[in-house]
Amino acid sequence: MDEFDIERVADPDLDEPVLIEGLPGVGHVGKLAAEHLLEEFDADLVARLYSEHFPPQVTIEEGRSQLACVEFHAIPEVDLLVLTGDHQAQDNAGHYRLTDRILDIAEDHGVGRAFALGGVPTGELIEEYNVIAAASDADLKEELEPMVEFREDEPAGGIVGVSGLLLGLGERRGIPTACLMGETSGYLVDPKSARAVLEVLQDIVDFEVGYDSLEDRAEEMEEVVKKIQEMEQGAAPSDDDLRYIG
Amino acid sequence: MDEFDIERVADPDLDEPVLIEGLPGVGHVGKLAAEHLLEEFDADLVARLYSEHFPPQVTIEEGRSQLACVEFHAIPEVDLLVLTGDHQAQDNAGHYRLTDRILDIAEDHGVGRAFALGGVPTGELIEEYNVIAAASDADLKEELEPMVEFREDEPAGGIVGVSGLLLGLGERRGIPTACLMGETSGYLVDPKSARAVLEVLQDIVDFEVGYDSLEDRAEEMEEVVKKIQEMEQGAAPSDDDLRYIG
Amino acid sequence: MDEFDIERVADPDLDEPVLIEGLPGVGHVGKLAAEHLLEEFDADLVARLYSEHFPPQVTIEEGRSQLACVEFHAIPEVDLLVLTGDHQAQDNAGHYRLTDRILDIAEDHGVGRAFALGGVPTGELIEEYNVIAAASDADLKEELEPMVEFREDEPAGGIVGVSGLLLGLGERRGIPTACLMGETSGYLVDPKSARAVLEVLQDIVDFEVGYDSLEDRAEEMEEVVKKIQEMEQGAAPSDDDLRYIG
Amino acid sequence: MDEFDIERVADPDLDEPVLIEGLPGVGHVGKLAAEHLLEEFDADLVARLYSEHFPPQVTIEEGRSQLACVEFHAIPEVDLLVLTGDHQAQDNAGHYRLTDRILDIAEDHGVGRAFALGGVPTGELIEEYNVIAAASDADLKEELEPMVEFREDEPAGGIVGVSGLLLGLGERRGIPTACLMGETSGYLVDPKSARAVLEVLQDIVDFEVGYDSLEDRAEEMEEVVKKIQEMEQGAAPSDDDLRYIG
Repeated sequence: MDEFDIERVADPDLDEPVLIEGLPGVGHVGKLAAEHLLEEFDADLVARLYSEHFPPQVTIEEGRSQLACVEFHAIPEVDLLVLTGDHQAQDNAGHYRLTDRILDIAEDHGVGRAFALGGVPTGELIEEYNVIAAASDADLKEELEPMVEFREDEPAGGIVGVSGLLLGLGERRGIPTACLMGETSGYLVDPKSARAVLEVLQDIVDFEVGYDSLEDRAEEMEEVVKKIQEMEQGAAPSDDDLRYIG
Repeated sequence: MDEFDIERVADPDLDEPVLIEGLPGVGHVGKLAAEHLLEEFDADLVARLYSEHFPPQVTIEEGRSQLACVEFHAIPEVDLLVLTGDHQAQDNAGHYRLTDRILDIAEDHGVGRAFALGGVPTGELIEEYNVIAAASDADLKEELEPMVEFREDEPAGGIVGVSGLLLGLGERRGIPTACLMGETSGYLVDPKSARAVLEVLQDIVDFEVGYDSLEDRAEEMEEVVKKIQEMEQGAAPSDDDLRYIG
Repeated sequence: MDEFDIERVADPDLDEPVLIEGLPGVGHVGKLAAEHLLEEFDADLVARLYSEHFPPQVTIEEGRSQLACVEFHAIPEVDLLVLTGDHQAQDNAGHYRLTDRILDIAEDHGVGRAFALGGVPTGELIEEYNVIAAASDADLKEELEPMVEFREDEPAGGIVGVSGLLLGLGERRGIPTACLMGETSGYLVDPKSARAVLEVLQDIVDFEVGYDSLEDRAEEMEEVVKKIQEMEQGAAPSDDDLRYIG
Repeated sequence: MDEFDIERVADPDLDEPVLIEGLPGVGHVGKLAAEHLLEEFDADLVARLYSEHFPPQVTIEEGRSQLACVEFHAIPEVDLLVLTGDHQAQDNAGHYRLTDRILDIAEDHGVGRAFALGGVPTGELIEEYNVIAAASDADLKEELEPMVEFREDEPAGGIVGVSGLLLGLGERRGIPTACLMGETSGYLVDPKSARAVLEVLQDIVDFEVGYDSLEDRAEEMEEVVKKIQEMEQGAAPSDDDLRYIG
């Protein structure tokens, strides 16, 4: 295998698609949101991207191995190219190079603009799920301003990993890119924050999607939170109750 | 030295051998199993593979140095190519590249399929030594199912290192590969788990091997466990009693 | 993006400029000093240097992203080329390669000599702000001796990062380079130490600059120190009071 | 600068020299021993080897900077090429590549055999300073056996870093290489262990050298040990008394 290895699975019927990125991160917000799109629409696996910058690992499902990768799915119905996966690069240069390969593939499919989805940690349980944004260029920012909040100095620590570099390297290639970040406590997988991000995204990109399955996961998470609170007050839950935490 | 350096020692008399990998890992199960094959059969050293991804180290035996490497031995009697050694790669990309070189050498010798041997930690002392499996493709899985157990979501953390990548990169080259993992506590070198793995392997690959020397090591380990238990109850063993732990 | 990517913004009107480096380090002394020059003079952004050796990160200001980089500004009025930024390289080889690229750019602009600005930690609050120096060659040392103090064995641990390598790699290219290090406690951002460094630098390079804004920042820091001392004695300041610490 | 950069300072008058390596390590035994040779004989600086695998650092002496490097000195009187320095490589591959460059330079000067000098930690204060050896090939081992002790399984952890790789990579190039390791506590710089190593080396290589200056340093170290022992019994020494520890 080379440093990167692309396995092309299908030639999708896309026009000038929008790239949606949802890799693991704070509260798994971006990952949950992107995977929700794959569940709700007819999505076709387009390509897998392997790399020696991913962990040296296979995952096992029903006895079959799958080499660490990220996956691109096409949703022709709403002209989206969706990037998901279980891994980020494991080293500094790897983040840069992985993002460059992702943008290569995006450009191969005629991507005109991109949205990185993620969470921004607040450190406390969320009542109202705000979404904040950052954009790689002034035009895109102006276009998005009616639909999503831009704050003066947030996120204070910048944006790290593939999401951040999609903005940074996307800008250098002339691909307008924005990051939509749902507020989340940072302690738990957060389907409600994922829904908030998708509600902003569907206004921007103009599609409609249902949220029943995310609501189900959100209710399961609320059960988990309740169990944890009980646990703190002395009751001991079974292992099974905790299965949705991470 | 280049990134990798192959020292070819002999040209083995193999037909379409099966590659058996047993490098250090949980309970040293894979390493013990592979080394047991080298002891029980007439095995010839075929090649050493050196790499700057191994620790910068020589081992010393009777005053002579040996540069860090992994070794390939041939067992012509049962058409096996056996990979053993004391080291894994020390960095992320190194795992990928090392496994690629291993597969290059395997292909040079006409390897048609491969088995990675290892242990899977249970966290408690084992009564019954189960072996679980994972396969790189559906046909191999189907073929193995009568002989070894596949579980839905195990091992939960996937398979890491050379064993995992043999499946992942083997699949990408079209070499059917399986990993056989003996359950083991994870706390001690475990010759019994190695025997359990070999008993599955000999059914699959069709060879016969005795287990006397592994049984001897297992008994020594049981002595060690007994000493540790006594130690926990207050008795102080001599250093010498502990020599077989790691 | 390649390992390094230079974005040339303007072609500055410089003659044989002096390179001034002020990247993050002890007490942010070098960074404060270099940024003060950019504030006090008419400075033009000349180039941005991006690298996969920087953190995989964008900073966000008013909703717009900026990929991690270091920046070169020209100050034609006093013939200076000033290097500033928020990042150092993240890995060992990266420090060497980044410094080499910086020197490439410096040579492209005809730089004849260079000064690295920084702080040297004393571990205690400073009364009198001394500046110590180190030079890459004997002639420069001799020239600087009337203007700045050279000590026999200081700094004891040498000079690490871009500042150190500007001396080491500058010497190998024949660019006389010196490092000016302001004593600083090492615990706080230290505008007074930055001023002390600039006062030495302006004698050496022959320019004049006001210090009002640095004095303002120094007073703010003194307020912070006072708050901390009160805090240690039991009073609880608001979060806002601490905003200038790092 | 490239990955490695050789600065040739002089063309030495050597015949078929022996390479002596003494870089930092356990008890600084190898470094002390090699530097003692440079002090006692007329030694000429032959070359400096720079590398991005060394720390990104300059050392400062009397206000002048010196980029991190290792140095080769020639001692024509006894036909030795001596490698000393303050640094080891900072990464895994760097150890391999650095040792390869060192062997390149050694071969350029016609080196026929090499000795790596070092310490082996015992964990307790030493009464009798034994020296143990390891050799890269059987002939050299046989030749050395009358002069130095080879033990069955020591050092148990092998030999790490440049010293170990000189054996491992030296063997692969056909340069007979041995490592001489003086027993040392591992807690302190140990001039007595360095002397023990040199006494073995001078028999093997056939030269004569005085030990007065090493004895002086040994006495200073004994003073330090005494101070520490007193300190443990309650007396507080001045900082100055501890200057020779590291």
